[in-house]
Amino acid sequence: MQKKINVGLIGLGTVGGGALQVLSQNRTLIGRRSVDIVVKKICNLDLPYTEARIAELGLTETTATTDYHDLTDDPEIDIVIELIGGIHPALEMVQAALRAGKSVVTANKDLVASHGAELFQLAAEHQADFLFEASVAGGIPILKALKDSLAANNIVEIMGIVNGTTNYILSQMSSTGADFQPCLQRAQELGYAEANPTNDIEGYDAARKMAILASIAYNANITEDMVYVEGIGKISKFDIDYAAQLGYVIKLVGLARPSAAAEDAVEVCVYPLMIPTEHPLAAVNDVFNAVFVEGDALGQSMFYGRGAGSLPTASAVAGDVIAAARHIVNGTQGGYGLRLFAKRRVLPIGDCNNKFYIRLMVQDKPKVLAQIAEAFAASEISLDSVIQKRVMDSGLAEIVLITHQVREANLQEAVARLHRLSCVDCVASLIRVKGA
Amino acid sequence: MQKKINVGLIGLGTVGGGALQVLSQNRTLIGRRSVDIVVKKICNLDLPYTEARIAELGLTETTATTDYHDLTDDPEIDIVIELIGGIHPALEMVQAALRAGKSVVTANKDLVASHGAELFQLAAEHQADFLFEASVAGGIPILKALKDSLAANNIVEIMGIVNGTTNYILSQMSSTGADFQPCLQRAQELGYAEANPTNDIEGYDAARKMAILASIAYNANITEDMVYVEGIGKISKFDIDYAAQLGYVIKLVGLARPSAAAEDAVEVCVYPLMIPTEHPLAAVNDVFNAVFVEGDALGQSMFYGRGAGSLPTASAVAGDVIAAARHIVNGTQGGYGLRLFAKRRVLPIGDCNNKFYIRLMVQDKPKVLAQIAEAFAASEISLDSVIQKRVMDSGLAEIVLITHQVREANLQEAVARLHRLSCVDCVASLIRVKGA
Repeated sequence: MQKKINVGLIGLGTVGGGALQVLSQNRTLIGRRSVDIVVKKICNLDLPYTEARIAELGLTETTATTDYHDLTDDPEIDIVIELIGGIHPALEMVQAALRAGKSVVTANKDLVASHGAELFQLAAEHQADFLFEASVAGGIPILKALKDSLAANNIVEIMGIVNGTTNYILSQMSSTGADFQPCLQRAQELGYAEANPTNDIEGYDAARKMAILASIAYNANITEDMVYVEGIGKISKFDIDYAAQLGYVIKLVGLARPSAAAEDAVEVCVYPLMIPTEHPLAAVNDVFNAVFVEGDALGQSMFYGRGAGSLPTASAVAGDVIAAARHIVNGTQGGYGLRLFAKRRVLPIGDCNNKFYIRLMVQDKPKVLAQIAEAFAASEISLDSVIQKRVMDSGLAEIVLITHQVREANLQEAVARLHRLSCVDCVASLIRVKGA
Repeated sequence: MQKKINVGLIGLGTVGGGALQVLSQNRTLIGRRSVDIVVKKICNLDLPYTEARIAELGLTETTATTDYHDLTDDPEIDIVIELIGGIHPALEMVQAALRAGKSVVTANKDLVASHGAELFQLAAEHQADFLFEASVAGGIPILKALKDSLAANNIVEIMGIVNGTTNYILSQMSSTGADFQPCLQRAQELGYAEANPTNDIEGYDAARKMAILASIAYNANITEDMVYVEGIGKISKFDIDYAAQLGYVIKLVGLARPSAAAEDAVEVCVYPLMIPTEHPLAAVNDVFNAVFVEGDALGQSMFYGRGAGSLPTASAVAGDVIAAARHIVNGTQGGYGLRLFAKRRVLPIGDCNNKFYIRLMVQDKPKVLAQIAEAFAASEISLDSVIQKRVMDSGLAEIVLITHQVREANLQEAVARLHRLSCVDCVASLIRVKGA
């Protein structure tokens, strides 16, 4: 395995810059461990910047271009790394590279979560690898673990903290007692959240990652639009506080598991979840990510690390490049492709079963609790506990309830009933709870 | 990849039985994800038991034997799984299989930690795979992660909780306040510790795993005899208690890192370590294992799961069998072998630098503290803090000190000085502390 493999890099932003740095600075180590890998061409719109970076890193074998065809048309380039993100023109670039028989490495979760299946297919047709470890949980090698090391397992459950921004905000709320808005602001000041934080806060980013994880775990074509999503915008410091009193922490969790109700279905969701403090995921704080996997043989496992950032993401990109390079040297590119052989539908959220935490503001009058209990009973929901009742300055009382496992549709029905009760001022919070 | 791969299994104990169960019960899933894998022959000394298990699992394509040559001489068998443990005759079996060009999968840490390099070499000569994921941390896919996904990283540090028995005992001591002996007894009752627990308690088991981890992380030939080892037999409940007060938990940790002092050296050790409670490893309790890895690109990561047990270990064995089978189908067996290209010596423990926690029993007299401080100063050791001083019923006082980072040889010199002081009754504990 002494052959030199030429790589073309598209994009020189945060992740692209990191990938270039890792591949060039650790080139000797990588070469001794596997194959000598050279970044031959970099495609980036800002040509002077690209040339300056190349000079700065002393890369005498590397040239710059603004046209991606210079990479995809180059017969000496074996692997194309796409790191510009978004659907267009990333999709066209990846397609061009695969059609030219080049293996592709990407960190583009948007692309994989929406166009994954067709790109796996295209890669297989052209005997090329299509690898995307960096698209989920940054540097954490969870996709390769699911595809290879855990391949003998039926996956019982995946629970992922796969968005660093929201995990930072919730960790801050938990440790400082502050409310959502100031914590979001702090995340923005630190560069952990974007100016428009919708993608992270509303859970869309996590949903894309869960679509990818679920596709691999269940060998099914799960796209981001199939994932039920709730964000963290409504989580208040009161909920964080009650959670702590009850022995829980609140995390934005992506969940994937086979449906207990229907054999052909999987649950794939993203929502805030109360996790028992002794659960391994509960200790995953700040911008760290972690994916908790239960396999029927393996039992419980967890993979923890940095889910974003220039170098951690570059570590995953470079790992994929090394894998693709080894396959090329061995002549087996395309031989380890992902197989989406299972037809699985995603269970509608109404059919999922969960335990719920419900915080209500009610009139502080006699018989209120009886009316509330009745509303739940009418939807066949039994309560685990009625935890708190405190009277506010407004004259309203706060009640916190935890249900047993309920069908979500029934829960929604009960909530509609509560809204109709004159003694109920509002249903302030509704958060799922991990537990039997 | 529709070919059928025949496997021969040697050993049908806890792990062997688990491997047979996973490979047979999940055969369809494995086949759809990769290659159809059939256990063709099982070699086990108790023939009636083997035949009974085969019948019980309804394996019509499987036969039993007591002679391993029936497996290694069978041209239809492509992969041999060795799960009897120990050096002899496992070594001879593995050698015979590799010499016959068969890929070998093993969980045998004793074998890999002592004869690894020669077996890697033998596998390379015969273009066969030699895979041993299950030898370290059971079901946790840490070896593959180091070899593949993290291959672009210089490994800055590995800290592993890689022995479930000792982690259970220390967790129990910590949660119940009990002392070492009753917790060991409880571990034995639960089957977590053997009747003769020396291998686990004294850290030898962990040392073998660290030799394997360090060999992979630093591409060097590190054998178990090169690993400095201290066990947990001397840890008292008082130390656990002080540790908690100071914000630490005590874990038996295996450590591997490049030496800061000498470029050609690595530190590879196993010893009880005080870990800050906020460190991810601090929350790893009971029989769970975890390997914390810091890479220069990846940053901090952790891999958590069950380090022992029939099915978790079988998950790793089956993952390796799947990898070996894919390589055979692709004609690339032996193409991904581990490369031990680096000459690295292991730094003598005396040359390592660490922070220390020291618990002393001293006469409760004036000027004692001054004499002790002088003993440390004479060895050029500066103290971070003098934490506690309490007078016991015996009239002796207890002093707890934490040093700054010190060269271990200097620390030992200071301890010898302390022993010579008439005011010092004994040095009750000496435990390394994670920290700058």
